[in-house]
Amino acid sequence: MRPAAVAAVNRALGIVGNPSSVHRFGRLARSLVEDAREQVALLVETDPAWVIFTSGGTEANTLALTATRPAAVLVSAIEHASVGEAVAGAIRIPVTAAGVVDMDALDMHLRAAPPPALVSVMLANNETGALQPVAAIAAMARRLGAFVHCDAVQAAGKLPIKIDELGVQMLSLSAHKLGGPPGVGALVVDPALPFAPLLRGGGQERRRRAGTENMIGIAGFGAAAVAAARLDDTARLAPLRDRIESEILAASPTTRVFGADTARLPNTSCLATPGLPAETQVIAFDLRGIAVSAGAACSSGKIEISHVLRAMGVGEDLARTAVRVSLGWTTAADDVDRFVAAWKAIHHHSLENSGEVCSGEGSGRVEPRLAPDTCPTPSSLTISG
Amino acid sequence: MRPAAVAAVNRALGIVGNPSSVHRFGRLARSLVEDAREQVALLVETDPAWVIFTSGGTEANTLALTATRPAAVLVSAIEHASVGEAVAGAIRIPVTAAGVVDMDALDMHLRAAPPPALVSVMLANNETGALQPVAAIAAMARRLGAFVHCDAVQAAGKLPIKIDELGVQMLSLSAHKLGGPPGVGALVVDPALPFAPLLRGGGQERRRRAGTENMIGIAGFGAAAVAAARLDDTARLAPLRDRIESEILAASPTTRVFGADTARLPNTSCLATPGLPAETQVIAFDLRGIAVSAGAACSSGKIEISHVLRAMGVGEDLARTAVRVSLGWTTAADDVDRFVAAWKAIHHHSLENSGEVCSGEGSGRVEPRLAPDTCPTPSSLTISG
Repeated sequence: MRPAAVAAVNRALGIVGNPSSVHRFGRLARSLVEDAREQVALLVETDPAWVIFTSGGTEANTLALTATRPAAVLVSAIEHASVGEAVAGAIRIPVTAAGVVDMDALDMHLRAAPPPALVSVMLANNETGALQPVAAIAAMARRLGAFVHCDAVQAAGKLPIKIDELGVQMLSLSAHKLGGPPGVGALVVDPALPFAPLLRGGGQERRRRAGTENMIGIAGFGAAAVAAARLDDTARLAPLRDRIESEILAASPTTRVFGADTARLPNTSCLATPGLPAETQVIAFDLRGIAVSAGAACSSGKIEISHVLRAMGVGEDLARTAVRVSLGWTTAADDVDRFVAAWKAIHHHSLENSGEVCSGEGSGRVEPRLAPDTCPTPSSLTISG
Repeated sequence: MRPAAVAAVNRALGIVGNPSSVHRFGRLARSLVEDAREQVALLVETDPAWVIFTSGGTEANTLALTATRPAAVLVSAIEHASVGEAVAGAIRIPVTAAGVVDMDALDMHLRAAPPPALVSVMLANNETGALQPVAAIAAMARRLGAFVHCDAVQAAGKLPIKIDELGVQMLSLSAHKLGGPPGVGALVVDPALPFAPLLRGGGQERRRRAGTENMIGIAGFGAAAVAAARLDDTARLAPLRDRIESEILAASPTTRVFGADTARLPNTSCLATPGLPAETQVIAFDLRGIAVSAGAACSSGKIEISHVLRAMGVGEDLARTAVRVSLGWTTAADDVDRFVAAWKAIHHHSLENSGEVCSGEGSGRVEPRLAPDTCPTPSSLTISG
C-alpha cells in the first residue's frame, strides 16, 4: 500500500460516524466518502456522480455485467475470471495471437446478438499487459445499440484514462491495484443507464449499491487514486521492464515474450522459457526471497493453464512455462538487477539439472535444488506463474 | 470501533501480501484471514469452514436469500431492508403487536409455498430490539423442508448465539455492529447447502465468494468478534436502558415503549411520545452534542415511517414520534444521566412551545429553539428517529 493510502486509512479509523447518519459524526464520515469519490472520479476524468463504491473489482465487474439486464453478454476470451464467469452463457470473442480482441469477430457476434447486448472488454490484460482497442470497441458497440463496459482494473494508474475518450458507459476499478487497500473498488457508470442493483436495501450510493460503506477502505482508495493519477511510474517502469526482457532474452534465446509485438502496459512482462516450468521458477524465486505467485493470484493456488495464453493460441507445454513479472510503484533499478540475476541463476541451474528438475513432474510440485539466499525480501516486483 | 479492532486493522496494514498468493507474504495474509475466520466462527459456535466473509450484512443477507435458489422466499414484515428488498416477490409474514413473528401465519404461508422455500427471520429486531423465536421457526421450517436463514446482525455480541441451538442453516453477521470496521461481514452457512455464489471468478472463500479479500476489515472483524463474544456489556446495559425508560416514562406518562412486553435486546429502546416529533428530538439532541440519527441510518437521510412500527399496527402519528436509543459498549452511567436530562429538557421545551415547534410542519425540517450546550460529544449512545 502507498504511504498516502495508509495515512488515509489511519485518518478514517479516527472517524466514528456512519456516513448515512445526519449527525455531525455522520456528516464527517459522509464528507470523507464524498472526498474519496471525487478523487476516484478524477482518476478517470469523470463526474463523481458516476462513481459507485463496491467491495472490489469482482463486485464492480459483476454489477457491470448484470445491472443493465442485457439479453446477450459478449466478453473477450482474455477477460479476468470475474468478467468471464460473471454470467452464464456469455459469448466469448476471440483474440489475435498478439492477445488483442478480434474486431471482425466482435462485429459479427454483436450483429447476431439479441438486443440489448452488452460488450465487456478490459483496457489492458492482466497477464500480458496487452492493451485492447476499447475506444473502437465502444464506438462499434454503441453504433449497434449495445451497452459497453470496460474492466480497467489492471490499466488504471498505469495509463491515463479518460472515460469520455474511451466512450464506455461503465468502467471497473480496484483500489489495491493502485496501491490502495484490498477489498474496495468502484464501478463508474453513466447515471442514464438502466440499473438494477446487485445489493438492495439501504439507500447508499444513490440507491445503486446498498450496505454501510467501507469507509476505511474508501478513504484509502481515494488517496491511492490521487497518487496513481500522477502516473509518476509509467515512464519510469517501461525501461526497467524492457531491461528485464532484453537481459533474459540475451541469456535465453528460446524465451518468448507474449504481447511484445503489441502495445502493452509499461509494468508487465509475460515470459515463457521452454524447459523451465513456471512452478519451478515460482518456488526458486520464493526461496531467494523474491515474492512470487503460482497461478493467477486470484485463483485458488492451483496452477492451471492460463486461459489468456490458450486464447492466444499458445501451446500447453509452452504455457506451462509462462510467468508474469509485474513492476510496481516501489520497483527500483536494483530490484531489476537482483531479479535478473536470480532468474539467470535459476535458469542456469535448471539447465544443469535438466532431466531432473524439469522432467516429467507434470503439474506436481518440483523441489528446487537452490538454497535460499540472503536477499532482503522485496515487495516491489512480483512474478506469477 | 473497539481498540482491539483498531489494533488489528493497524497490524493488517503492515502486511503486504495477497491471501491467494503462495509466497511468504501471501501466506502471512492468508493466516491473518484464517485466524479471523476462526474468531468469527467462535462468536456463533460454528466451524470456520461455515464462515464466508462478505462486504457486510447487506451482502450476507442478499447471498443468503439467493444462494440456494429458493422457489419461494418468506421473510418477516420487520426484517431489515437488505432482507426485505433482497428478492422480488418475497412473502411477508406478519408480526404481533409486540413485534414478534406470528407463528400461525408463518405455518400457513410455509405450507402453501412451492418448494424449495426459504424462511428468513432476524434474531432481534434492529428498531425495537424484540427477539424473534428463531429456534422454533427453524424447527418448523426444516420440518416442512424449507431452508432457514437468520439475520443476526443486530443480536450478535449482545446475546450468546449458538448456531446449532438456533438450528438455522445460514446466519448473517456485520462487523461494525460488533465494534469492528464498517464494510465487512459474514454469511455463516452449512457447507452441505446448495450454493450459487453472488460473486464469481476467483477461488476465494472456497469458491463461494470471489474477489480479493478485504484483509484489513476482516482482521478488524476478527478482533471485534473476540471482544464481542465475551458479552461483557450484556448484563451491564439492560439496567441502563431500563433507567432511561423509567425516567422518561415518569416524566412523560404518554410515552410508549415498543416491545416492552416481550423479550428484547439489552441495549435497545424504541420510544414514542405523542406531540414530540422524532425529527425535533433528533435535531435538538444533535445541537446538544449527542449523536443522533434521523430515520434508519441505513436509509437515505429522509425520515420515513418505520415499516417495523407499521407492521406492529402503530398509527402513523405515533410512529412519527418514535426514536430508537441504542446503548453501546462504551456507554456509561453518566451518558445515561446526560441523555435523560437532555431528553427531559427537549420534552419540556417542546411542551412550552407546543403549537410552534410541533405544529403542522409535516416531515419538513423543524428548527428547534434550543441553543447548543457545551456537552462533550459522546459516541457512546445513539438515538435514531
